[in-house]
Amino acid sequence: MKLWEKGIPTDVKTDMFTVGNDRELDLLLAEYDVTGSMAHAKMLGSVGLLTEDEVQDLVMALEDILTDIKKGDFTIEQSFEDVHSKVEYLLIEKLGDTGKKIHTARSRNDQVLVDVHLFLKAELIAIKQQTKELFDLLMAKAETHKDVLLPGYTHFQVAMPSSFGMWFSAYAESLVDDVVMLNAALNVVDQNPLGSAAGYGSSFPINRTFTTQELGFNTLKYNSVAAQMSRGKAEKTTAFAMASVAGTLSKLAMDICLYLSQNFSFIKLPQHLTTGSSIMPHKKNPDIFELIRGKCNKIQALPYELTLITNNLPSGYHRDMQLLKEGLFPALQNLKSCLEMAIFSIKEIEPNNDILDDKKYDYLFTVDALNELVSGGVPFRDAYKIVGEQVENNSFVSPKATKHSHEGSINNLCLNEIQAKMNTAFEL
Amino acid sequence: MKLWEKGIPTDVKTDMFTVGNDRELDLLLAEYDVTGSMAHAKMLGSVGLLTEDEVQDLVMALEDILTDIKKGDFTIEQSFEDVHSKVEYLLIEKLGDTGKKIHTARSRNDQVLVDVHLFLKAELIAIKQQTKELFDLLMAKAETHKDVLLPGYTHFQVAMPSSFGMWFSAYAESLVDDVVMLNAALNVVDQNPLGSAAGYGSSFPINRTFTTQELGFNTLKYNSVAAQMSRGKAEKTTAFAMASVAGTLSKLAMDICLYLSQNFSFIKLPQHLTTGSSIMPHKKNPDIFELIRGKCNKIQALPYELTLITNNLPSGYHRDMQLLKEGLFPALQNLKSCLEMAIFSIKEIEPNNDILDDKKYDYLFTVDALNELVSGGVPFRDAYKIVGEQVENNSFVSPKATKHSHEGSINNLCLNEIQAKMNTAFEL
Amino acid sequence: MKLWEKGIPTDVKTDMFTVGNDRELDLLLAEYDVTGSMAHAKMLGSVGLLTEDEVQDLVMALEDILTDIKKGDFTIEQSFEDVHSKVEYLLIEKLGDTGKKIHTARSRNDQVLVDVHLFLKAELIAIKQQTKELFDLLMAKAETHKDVLLPGYTHFQVAMPSSFGMWFSAYAESLVDDVVMLNAALNVVDQNPLGSAAGYGSSFPINRTFTTQELGFNTLKYNSVAAQMSRGKAEKTTAFAMASVAGTLSKLAMDICLYLSQNFSFIKLPQHLTTGSSIMPHKKNPDIFELIRGKCNKIQALPYELTLITNNLPSGYHRDMQLLKEGLFPALQNLKSCLEMAIFSIKEIEPNNDILDDKKYDYLFTVDALNELVSGGVPFRDAYKIVGEQVENNSFVSPKATKHSHEGSINNLCLNEIQAKMNTAFEL
Amino acid sequence: MKLWEKGIPTDVKTDMFTVGNDRELDLLLAEYDVTGSMAHAKMLGSVGLLTEDEVQDLVMALEDILTDIKKGDFTIEQSFEDVHSKVEYLLIEKLGDTGKKIHTARSRNDQVLVDVHLFLKAELIAIKQQTKELFDLLMAKAETHKDVLLPGYTHFQVAMPSSFGMWFSAYAESLVDDVVMLNAALNVVDQNPLGSAAGYGSSFPINRTFTTQELGFNTLKYNSVAAQMSRGKAEKTTAFAMASVAGTLSKLAMDICLYLSQNFSFIKLPQHLTTGSSIMPHKKNPDIFELIRGKCNKIQALPYELTLITNNLPSGYHRDMQLLKEGLFPALQNLKSCLEMAIFSIKEIEPNNDILDDKKYDYLFTVDALNELVSGGVPFRDAYKIVGEQVENNSFVSPKATKHSHEGSINNLCLNEIQAKMNTAFEL
Repeated sequence: MKLWEKGIPTDVKTDMFTVGNDRELDLLLAEYDVTGSMAHAKMLGSVGLLTEDEVQDLVMALEDILTDIKKGDFTIEQSFEDVHSKVEYLLIEKLGDTGKKIHTARSRNDQVLVDVHLFLKAELIAIKQQTKELFDLLMAKAETHKDVLLPGYTHFQVAMPSSFGMWFSAYAESLVDDVVMLNAALNVVDQNPLGSAAGYGSSFPINRTFTTQELGFNTLKYNSVAAQMSRGKAEKTTAFAMASVAGTLSKLAMDICLYLSQNFSFIKLPQHLTTGSSIMPHKKNPDIFELIRGKCNKIQALPYELTLITNNLPSGYHRDMQLLKEGLFPALQNLKSCLEMAIFSIKEIEPNNDILDDKKYDYLFTVDALNELVSGGVPFRDAYKIVGEQVENNSFVSPKATKHSHEGSINNLCLNEIQAKMNTAFEL
Repeated sequence: MKLWEKGIPTDVKTDMFTVGNDRELDLLLAEYDVTGSMAHAKMLGSVGLLTEDEVQDLVMALEDILTDIKKGDFTIEQSFEDVHSKVEYLLIEKLGDTGKKIHTARSRNDQVLVDVHLFLKAELIAIKQQTKELFDLLMAKAETHKDVLLPGYTHFQVAMPSSFGMWFSAYAESLVDDVVMLNAALNVVDQNPLGSAAGYGSSFPINRTFTTQELGFNTLKYNSVAAQMSRGKAEKTTAFAMASVAGTLSKLAMDICLYLSQNFSFIKLPQHLTTGSSIMPHKKNPDIFELIRGKCNKIQALPYELTLITNNLPSGYHRDMQLLKEGLFPALQNLKSCLEMAIFSIKEIEPNNDILDDKKYDYLFTVDALNELVSGGVPFRDAYKIVGEQVENNSFVSPKATKHSHEGSINNLCLNEIQAKMNTAFEL
Repeated sequence: MKLWEKGIPTDVKTDMFTVGNDRELDLLLAEYDVTGSMAHAKMLGSVGLLTEDEVQDLVMALEDILTDIKKGDFTIEQSFEDVHSKVEYLLIEKLGDTGKKIHTARSRNDQVLVDVHLFLKAELIAIKQQTKELFDLLMAKAETHKDVLLPGYTHFQVAMPSSFGMWFSAYAESLVDDVVMLNAALNVVDQNPLGSAAGYGSSFPINRTFTTQELGFNTLKYNSVAAQMSRGKAEKTTAFAMASVAGTLSKLAMDICLYLSQNFSFIKLPQHLTTGSSIMPHKKNPDIFELIRGKCNKIQALPYELTLITNNLPSGYHRDMQLLKEGLFPALQNLKSCLEMAIFSIKEIEPNNDILDDKKYDYLFTVDALNELVSGGVPFRDAYKIVGEQVENNSFVSPKATKHSHEGSINNLCLNEIQAKMNTAFEL
Repeated sequence: MKLWEKGIPTDVKTDMFTVGNDRELDLLLAEYDVTGSMAHAKMLGSVGLLTEDEVQDLVMALEDILTDIKKGDFTIEQSFEDVHSKVEYLLIEKLGDTGKKIHTARSRNDQVLVDVHLFLKAELIAIKQQTKELFDLLMAKAETHKDVLLPGYTHFQVAMPSSFGMWFSAYAESLVDDVVMLNAALNVVDQNPLGSAAGYGSSFPINRTFTTQELGFNTLKYNSVAAQMSRGKAEKTTAFAMASVAGTLSKLAMDICLYLSQNFSFIKLPQHLTTGSSIMPHKKNPDIFELIRGKCNKIQALPYELTLITNNLPSGYHRDMQLLKEGLFPALQNLKSCLEMAIFSIKEIEPNNDILDDKKYDYLFTVDALNELVSGGVPFRDAYKIVGEQVENNSFVSPKATKHSHEGSINNLCLNEIQAKMNTAFEL
């Protein structure tokens, strides 16, 4: 990062400027680059552009590379510009002229497109899986603590009774919407761009349906120009879905940070999940949740970065698109780690059981008390007057319990229905 | 807007500050506010909180209001804070005490939530419909002009042959992805929040399944806290889908503005769709497409505005949420008008047929020429040398025609397959 | 806004689409449009392009229009596209051919540029003035309440003693930085673009130095292309400065909303500044501060909207730039109203004096107690052990008072120095 | 980055999650951390909290560390959380108990604040210097090529004559505004936060004026809470100024990419600054300028990321603030490298001299021709008719030369005045 100091030769600087940290980011694509090349080789064989033997040699050599990648033995040295040139180098080193033939009817443009689509598909599936795990955890916590009451706030003001059952399962149900967005993003990335070459197709008689099936894509991005235009669009759509999950997680983390404050004291975290101060024994800094909040807020800025990079560029490839990876790839890792840390830490959250003993929460139940009088036949205006007077002369006695019966209320959480909704969304 | 000048009394300023332009925006919600109230009244009857007669009176009065709304006779005067208070006023004016009962077991919070959900659902359906119309138009243009060639660019540099068939249908196929995003947003808003009251449910024995069916919602947002949290989330999700459509439209508009420049001259627009200059006869300013581009770029900033307003607010209602409407509602109108103007104007785009006569486009076909030699049996290296020499000594003769056969190439646009993909997405 | 319904003729729709709400926004520019025209007329006279009489007629007619504008009698009817055409119409109506001459050596492009620059300059000066008023208020509140202690938080955890003197004057000192940003924006907009015509100057022998002096601009934007490029840049720079002020205000509003919660109860607001609930007597919803927070957060999204509209457009005018006004102009009014409401409401904030009586704040002083032992000669490790043991066996007695002496600490607020810093910044 | 895979122990993951890539980023702060510690040690000596000998030992040890940092011999190993703990470790290793005393009357919070302020100040000065270099280059290019004409565009349509003198110096003059913004940011960061401790000051009798002078800060951020609040605000202000420079640079890069397209061919770049294609000899891909454009657009997203991370957090430190470095620090390096590559590459841009020979640019001069007739005494309407007819019957002969005389026009570029404006801004 300190390369832009005096004394660095211009060509090194130019390389740094144009290649950037692509080598590091491309390690995440290596697996998909090799898979894409295998499918391409087989397809070239199927249409007679490669011989059976050539295909077999290429596939075997690619499988060796894949094994190295999975073992962590694959590197992209300074002498290679990106993962594609490194893989090609390895093939040529091993197979000579046959190695060179892998690039027939393919361009660097559709190669990186197919890598990115395969990668994003895998990442979105992983994030969807983690989102489901977090959902399951929140639902379990809701069930366990469904009877522990909690003040509900509006305008940051103590308002109405809520419960840990409500609170945990509210975030769970919100995650269903995030899964819907993840599904949409998956749908968008699950289209094969391979064969679009430099963005306008080619004169080779390739079979794109073959590679689509081979790579397990749901469908083709048929139009070659559309395939090229998916650069940027696939990334932005993924980022929208990520921002959706991140928004839910950030809000949850904010609640947790607040609830851990001495001014709320609604929940407890074990010591190993907070950082303290030896001299201030009351301090339980919720660093993990502050960082989940902060990281998820940063992720919510990602779509804007991707939009600014691609916006107002006419159709056709522009080098700017290379920069999409820089923000997106680490953000994917960050979101996965936020989900993992959330699952790991929320597991250990314990509610305080006696929150409502504090007198300042007594008025939570004025509306319930009023409704009860009304349901018992007292006209609304009289009931209103009765409770109002009780409050005024301090004689209001909080029932400290609720009799809410409707769908989605404290005493009828509809956890089964929410679970069913998630199951449906998850299966799509 | 000039209200913040000297001499305005404080209470008027405070009203302006807190109410803002809610009255105007709320006109868009009026229809849904009345529909929501009808369902609520019927439900209250079904659980015995209203009598049959009361329900009938309320529903009839609401139907009258709805008629006025549809005729454009409904207004929200300065004396009312919002649409909800105006409708309530009308009910009370007509029905006395019965009118007051409409607010039983309901809060302003879930009332605005249900209005917004119904409104966004209707708007998203309208946008989806328009997106499909634009798709159909682009597909028809692609079919009509499929044989007219066009230079394809990479890095803004003349690169490979393309065609108007490719260009038009590329944007069509991109719109399929936008429909996928619209479906996701629809899925998210199509959940009934009514009954969540102030965000924590209530002690009344209401039947939320009843109102869900009555209002035609796909499902309930069960958890009352989750229903409240959908404020902001429903808007953001809608904005993500809008940004997706807007991104496609903005890029298309940029292409069109460029193609109309004298430096490209790829397409023609009739005079009534451009603004000119009497003294500069060559000027055909594409104002409509510049405004589509600009408005769609502005729409792409919307998700960030909504995120900034809601971010880091803990769960529970905050007044800030009122401000979500200000950006979102006009943006919806803008997107619909952009789609309408695009459909209206793109219809009239005529390609120039002789674009490739210009010598600067001859090199478009070098790669095709090379590939042809290779396919004819000439080893790649020899073919490469032959074409290279032709180029160098200016003897390269452009074929000015393509023989691309693969899926999604110039001579195999796969319009049927793209149409089928859209149909599937549209039906979801 | 409902114009995009069926049944509206196309030309009306096209007008709506291209003109949008320009007429309404342009009312804010009217005064500056007239002033700019006066200077232009005088300049044309000074270089012989108009006669003395023509200049005099034009200036007098413009002064009449200005009078109407200031009285609120100026309107832009549906038949005019914008403020410029309306003013020109009035001049021609009154002066015939002389009226037409006002447009000599001027283009709509530099006319709107000069209007916007004059307008933004006036708005920035007004915002700077209000920012100074808020600063003065916060400084006065700091002085008045300098002895009232307050818990200081880190990580939302009770941490160290603070005071209302610290709190109020912290926001005051932050506003100094915002004034620095406002100065920078003022510097950028205070450059005369008039004479740049359509963005490339003209062949008329105009005198741009003359209009610069006449309009009170600090300097010229000399280069005509640079003057045109200031469209977008002037707006963005203004938005950056606005975002700076809005950021400070939003944070202050968040603190206030929190401090008004029953869980903090650090401050009181009189009833007319909160909204309550008749049945929940404890509720004091801080709507005004929630709306200041929300509106200021919305303002912070403005720079991104402006950036998205202008980004990746090459030099030269594009119609997209017309859309910059739509977001910017209301945001300016919003920021001014937020500042006004903040000044109006913060005046009435009263701190609670007995906050630290609550036992949960006792540990605020452990670090002070430790430091005191150390200052008294006890080795750090021993002091640490002593206080640690007091805390553990509940014998720690909070001093509930501070002896902080350094610059910017509780007992040495340096209000004079902060005032001097603001004075210096304000004078620039 | 692959750490979030299965099989990594939880504590390593937690470390990764909380520390992130702080160690790498902190290397950029090392120099300032040591300088800050030197000033702090001397101040502690001056107020009697350290002995003369202790101060001398600490300063000498810190100077040794500084030497290592400048030689590139300083590292932050996995066992240290950040630069602060590594420096402290080195001091304790060398000086024992004296080493520990460096932390007297200081907190990690104000330590990182002072590091960041010193770092941002140095970076902003470097960026300002580079901006001035780019300005000088553009001014020199403007002078050299002032007579080469260029078409000026509005709406992407050929409009009016411009020149390379106009074009180059337009961007130069725009950079003056960016320097104004850089000055504002410098003003904001050039305030000493040291001594604010954890954000509420301390009970130690420190002398903050001493460290302010010692560190060369322009003034103190007096109020300790304000000093803490500058976390986030200093970064955002810096990002606003960076976005300003980046906006200018991105627009210039867009012009260059366009002008290099075969459809414009306005400028030439030497081969080593473009990437080509052996088979398409016309291709001169302007990768460097595409990457300048893309990177500068990414930088313009930075303020939004920083705003999202900090927004709606009440006053007081939150761990989220640690994440501000992640986006900001690489962006600073990127902006510096973009400026360097721009200077390096723009130097080599050569205009084509015969651009206006192309017939499509003839109409550029219709307005000039008309104005000339008018200036020669022909009434406007007649002149208009004459030129209009010439255009219609193809008899219009372009003068292909301009006689523009006013300030900032083709034949009167006012380069001296623009230079003077920059000099004034630069000296502030």
